[in-house]
Amino acid sequence: MSNGDCVFCKIRDGQIPSFKIYEDARTLAFMDINPLNPGHCLVMAKSHAPTIFDADVVDLQAAMATLKKVASAVRAAVQADGINILQANGAAAFQSVPHIHFHVIPRFTNDGKGFDWKLVPGDKEQIQMNGERIRAVLR
Amino acid sequence: MSNGDCVFCKIRDGQIPSFKIYEDARTLAFMDINPLNPGHCLVMAKSHAPTIFDADVVDLQAAMATLKKVASAVRAAVQADGINILQANGAAAFQSVPHIHFHVIPRFTNDGKGFDWKLVPGDKEQIQMNGERIRAVLR
Repeated sequence: MSNGDCVFCKIRDGQIPSFKIYEDARTLAFMDINPLNPGHCLVMAKSHAPTIFDADVVDLQAAMATLKKVASAVRAAVQADGINILQANGAAAFQSVPHIHFHVIPRFTNDGKGFDWKLVPGDKEQIQMNGERIRAVLR
Repeated sequence: MSNGDCVFCKIRDGQIPSFKIYEDARTLAFMDINPLNPGHCLVMAKSHAPTIFDADVVDLQAAMATLKKVASAVRAAVQADGINILQANGAAAFQSVPHIHFHVIPRFTNDGKGFDWKLVPGDKEQIQMNGERIRAVLR
């Protein structure tokens, strides 16, 4: 599936330049042009789907296999101390390109970069209530 | 595979209480006790492996199928505007429990919560150099 206006479909098709690092039948990995740290790259499903809600599970699982390969390669290549995988669905989650992709973000000890958060214990009853709501949808 | 000292192995085995929302042969989903937002939960592979580098790709792909189900259910249950999937490998990436797991984080428009980052264009030559290093490892 393809979307004529989609930047990542155009990257996949070579209509927009990118630095590609890995490609197989269902997935593509390329360098992020706004790297949070050196080696920051993206893994995307080739087939156009905006989010994890819409994407075919087979494409998502292919992306996972690629993520394992690419994350391991990134770690070795830039000698990262850690790696974060981050994926965003929807503008509220700061998704900038509506074509499903996963950030592979090298981390270095005390690099002070992004999305660290304080662990604040939540209200037990609220957690249980939300858990019951989610369970009910999954049934 | 199991690890006697691992908190998430103990949760899987019912030795530590948790609010489980989904379970299948290879994966388990349960509520995060330090929620960043209401509905925040975790998807883990049942088999003990610390990170994406060590985990079996079949377990990772099973986790991906569960992530799709659980993320969709969370969105519906708490009427989230978006969802972030976040996974950490290593202390430098703020991994707190060394048993592979994925955060499913509901997001609400302008909730001001976590890991937003400024898009700063990187140096093209550096990006290419790092891309070449990663490619070389993948070859």
